[in-house]
Amino acid sequence: MNRQIRLKSRPNGMPSAANFEFVDAPMPSLSDGDVLRRTTYLSLDPYMRGRMSEGPSYAAPVDLEAVMCGHTVSEVVESRNPGFQAGDVVAGYDGWQQYAASNGKDLRKLDPAGVPISTAIGVLGMPGATAYVGLLDIGQPKPGETVVVSAASGAVGSIVGQLAKVKGCRAIGVAGSAEKCRYVVEELGFDACINYKTEDLVPALAAACPNGVDIDFENVGGEVLAAVLRVLNRGGRIPLCGMIAEYNATSNPGGPSLRPLLVNRAMIRGFIVSDHYDRFPAFLRECTPLVASGRLKHREDVVEGLESAPSALIGLFQGRNFGKLIVQVSADPTSVPA
Amino acid sequence: MNRQIRLKSRPNGMPSAANFEFVDAPMPSLSDGDVLRRTTYLSLDPYMRGRMSEGPSYAAPVDLEAVMCGHTVSEVVESRNPGFQAGDVVAGYDGWQQYAASNGKDLRKLDPAGVPISTAIGVLGMPGATAYVGLLDIGQPKPGETVVVSAASGAVGSIVGQLAKVKGCRAIGVAGSAEKCRYVVEELGFDACINYKTEDLVPALAAACPNGVDIDFENVGGEVLAAVLRVLNRGGRIPLCGMIAEYNATSNPGGPSLRPLLVNRAMIRGFIVSDHYDRFPAFLRECTPLVASGRLKHREDVVEGLESAPSALIGLFQGRNFGKLIVQVSADPTSVPA
Repeated sequence: MNRQIRLKSRPNGMPSAANFEFVDAPMPSLSDGDVLRRTTYLSLDPYMRGRMSEGPSYAAPVDLEAVMCGHTVSEVVESRNPGFQAGDVVAGYDGWQQYAASNGKDLRKLDPAGVPISTAIGVLGMPGATAYVGLLDIGQPKPGETVVVSAASGAVGSIVGQLAKVKGCRAIGVAGSAEKCRYVVEELGFDACINYKTEDLVPALAAACPNGVDIDFENVGGEVLAAVLRVLNRGGRIPLCGMIAEYNATSNPGGPSLRPLLVNRAMIRGFIVSDHYDRFPAFLRECTPLVASGRLKHREDVVEGLESAPSALIGLFQGRNFGKLIVQVSADPTSVPA
Repeated sequence: MNRQIRLKSRPNGMPSAANFEFVDAPMPSLSDGDVLRRTTYLSLDPYMRGRMSEGPSYAAPVDLEAVMCGHTVSEVVESRNPGFQAGDVVAGYDGWQQYAASNGKDLRKLDPAGVPISTAIGVLGMPGATAYVGLLDIGQPKPGETVVVSAASGAVGSIVGQLAKVKGCRAIGVAGSAEKCRYVVEELGFDACINYKTEDLVPALAAACPNGVDIDFENVGGEVLAAVLRVLNRGGRIPLCGMIAEYNATSNPGGPSLRPLLVNRAMIRGFIVSDHYDRFPAFLRECTPLVASGRLKHREDVVEGLESAPSALIGLFQGRNFGKLIVQVSADPTSVPA
């Protein structure tokens, strides 16, 4: 059987366990050319909230009764496709289920000898590419500039700040606990990190950014964005990657006055990494060696078992995770037994 | 004597007559190389509100007791500079006064044989250049796209919509009276114009923009911007030129949720035309023939006498003007007697 988690109902506000349903479906049947794989890791990401709703978002919503979407790392268990063989490890978009099959066009073969295979849904996957495209292509950082990033210990934010340092910028994080802030500064090498739950954002930002803010890589929106607008420099750029602060709002939350954009000739641009997949090869070329050498650090928050996915996703919106949130759906075929 | 209007005090909220003071100053004295001119026309523009306040804005504020700033068209009355002679008509930035003198580096000689000299502070001056740079360079209009512009009968908005039509776009205005809307559609050739005082903005915009909005040239902010965000297309662009709705706010007015920027991969960019004066020659080259031929129409709201400037500027913030607001400070040397 193929255990799946499907979208049962659409949430109003914060998702709950009742929005999901567990189904034991038959195993997918294979035709010539098809590849069957078993999910090893499933990525949980903030964008999934948008897919659970009916309203307009980046992409079409997940249909009711359909398997929840998500990036995956999987092991090929049977192949009728000459491009793949059993034991291959692949990155795909198989969603919240134990098994999936397709003609393989949607799969990217991974090299388990290089970096850990789970990085393909994290630092070297969609979240890393999001950081790369947003910071470099939209933010256009120049050495000596100051980059602020919210959700700084998260999958995307942690890479943004480290890439900013690689590019010679000052990197300031905003995160939701002292422990996260400590990690961001001490482990990831950010210049400072502000705890938005205990610090007064505007003075804290002003103190951490004595030369103002040139780039705000915005993952959160809400109060964080409003505060950054107060300390934005002339010509500031705001790649708008996410607004997790608003995803579960049940009424229009409003926003900050945009007059600082006018006064400072500044720019906000919303982007979705899937519009920029032409940059994926350049991203992997530049970042894979940085990950392999340890220059680009990453932290995974791994929860065990597909059944944990709903509560883990809800925790993501509550800031409960610490690092890239991943569900381990089955044993990692590349992991060395302890 | 040289009658001047100086900034006496800084307004809190809407400016009042008490913020200005009339002074009869001595005539400027000339050194070798200097040019003395008499102001013919003084331009009144929304940006002046920012200059009256101490807070950060595009540029340094006008000092207390200093002459209020402003673009002017003037007639040279005495020249000790070989580049100018009495009778020349020049565009400058002489502010709210009858006479001014300088070495002439800040002056642009006008050709009174071409278009009316008052156009140098309107359709062929800073407001026209603002429309040109914001729409073409930041908005990047493509034929068939839909352009919305607020304050559509004003100095900048009227040019934005007409240039949008020149570029093959659909042009939709937003203005504050039935008379203004009629002018915008019937005289200027916009496809439609919405009266924001009597119409429900979101449905009216949706009806006027059946293919959505690709560019919002934003002069107003507030409710208009919030409404446009609801009907913005994927890849939408918002050149943010002004936020006249907020200039006289005494508390932070907040703004709309920016989630539509994310969902639509859209962009807002604040700009100030003075950062883009390298585009002035191209602007004049393209637009002067359009004005001369009548393709680019413009309407002036001329108030008589320097003394009228304070109340006229206040009226600008109340939407009382209809067309480019100009103060006639002295007789136009080029006008043909009736």
